[in-house]
Amino acid sequence: MKLADTHVAIIGIGLMGGSLARALQGKVNSLTGVDSDRYALDHARGLGIFDRLCPDPADGLEPCDLAILATPVRAILDLLDRINQDLPTPRYLMDLGSTKETITARMQSLPDQVDPVGGHPLCGMETAGIQASDPEIFQGSVFVLTPLERTSDGCLRLAEELVTSVGATPMIMSADEHDRLAAITSHLPYLLTAALTGTAMKLERNDQRLADMVASGFIDTTRIAASDVEMISDVLLSNSSNIVQALRHFSENVQSLAGLVEKGSPDALHEHLRPIQRWRRELPKYGSKEA
Amino acid sequence: MKLADTHVAIIGIGLMGGSLARALQGKVNSLTGVDSDRYALDHARGLGIFDRLCPDPADGLEPCDLAILATPVRAILDLLDRINQDLPTPRYLMDLGSTKETITARMQSLPDQVDPVGGHPLCGMETAGIQASDPEIFQGSVFVLTPLERTSDGCLRLAEELVTSVGATPMIMSADEHDRLAAITSHLPYLLTAALTGTAMKLERNDQRLADMVASGFIDTTRIAASDVEMISDVLLSNSSNIVQALRHFSENVQSLAGLVEKGSPDALHEHLRPIQRWRRELPKYGSKEA
Repeated sequence: MKLADTHVAIIGIGLMGGSLARALQGKVNSLTGVDSDRYALDHARGLGIFDRLCPDPADGLEPCDLAILATPVRAILDLLDRINQDLPTPRYLMDLGSTKETITARMQSLPDQVDPVGGHPLCGMETAGIQASDPEIFQGSVFVLTPLERTSDGCLRLAEELVTSVGATPMIMSADEHDRLAAITSHLPYLLTAALTGTAMKLERNDQRLADMVASGFIDTTRIAASDVEMISDVLLSNSSNIVQALRHFSENVQSLAGLVEKGSPDALHEHLRPIQRWRRELPKYGSKEA
Repeated sequence: MKLADTHVAIIGIGLMGGSLARALQGKVNSLTGVDSDRYALDHARGLGIFDRLCPDPADGLEPCDLAILATPVRAILDLLDRINQDLPTPRYLMDLGSTKETITARMQSLPDQVDPVGGHPLCGMETAGIQASDPEIFQGSVFVLTPLERTSDGCLRLAEELVTSVGATPMIMSADEHDRLAAITSHLPYLLTAALTGTAMKLERNDQRLADMVASGFIDTTRIAASDVEMISDVLLSNSSNIVQALRHFSENVQSLAGLVEKGSPDALHEHLRPIQRWRRELPKYGSKEA
């Protein structure tokens, strides 16, 4: 099936679903938006990009060739359960959840006529809601696809065409590998910056000038601590064992670095920090605000 | 003494010294630039903003009403020792070092005819060198001044006039308070992001796709891990006890957060994260790339 012929239903038209809808406009046969939130539906109506908008997945999923679940992780799991029970079954199904193991495990028990694939566009932001949506956020970013054993070639090809059409690069990996790597590149950074922000918040009670001392370094380092709490909590709780493992690796690293700072040898500290600086400077800048 | 009448010598014309020189252009009587690096001197000559450029502080400090030490922390300490010994003594002296206790302690033993004050513009960047200098980096940022007991009113007034003239807001505090707060707002964030980057770097050896999974969140969180290694090492080593103390507070916070993730209760996690998110969202955005 070609993307241009596909009737697409997006369940959850917040930041990610809304941005994807806007990026897909004119590239699919029809676009249906589903959201239980009246405000999101009204805003989506104002954008004029959906052929159909409705509050209930039972209406939105019929007729539909490709259903895209773009809600937070827990709601994705609930939707998968409901498709197993009473919701109409789409031919193809993709989700945009930030963790993949729990979701693809749940996809295993979908009815046979559904052809599912996991997806995760790596372009999260600390904003939320369709009012913050932006069709450009996928441009130049990586879009992970985690096929199941039951995923057909046709389903994967359609997903890849969709990813490419919004300007992203598809990256195919197992759900297991995705979650292990995302624990390091995304979930641990959130955990650390939330703890750092929490530390500063507590210490500010003793000295209010702390907030005035905050400069651009702290602001950029802790940007993701402003993320939507419900969304990120779902992510953390659905990947806790990988995160705890990543935190263990991190703790070893921070202790050896702190040891060097206490020891007081500039040469040893330089030697430790130089490869880290070099590696960081060579990272790609996908979706970053960096120049 | 008015800023407009002042003969200013800036020792160390890298990112910070070069930016300050450019921001002071036309606002002082004369500008002398001193740097042992031939490349920096050549680049500074090309900018055409200095009345005089020389490689040796012995030449640059005579005649001079205000000497501004804008080198890394260790070199500032060396310069203070040399002013104690054989260098010409400026009437007023300010430094731009990122830690203040060690430096102001060393300033105590300067000859009586020198009137010193500590300074720290909170607008660091991960770039370095005069080629990255920018007269605008002080605009809207906080510029801490740490007067000593021996600092005269005239010296502090001149320093405040200088700070205001480059578009920054002066914030007067003790060197002790500065270093305690900077450990939280600046040095701990660096330590954590360097350790996080180091963790990712090590784990990438087992799975090279890790670097491809890096998205904007990781990039922004670890931006300061790209900082100049020599410069930041001086900073860490001259504030190690405050940093170790800050790391202790942080470790408690990260452990209680990790405990909530392991425990698996969404409500408890939301309750923990919500005030942190709110506090972060209300922070000022000095010098940040945030909208």
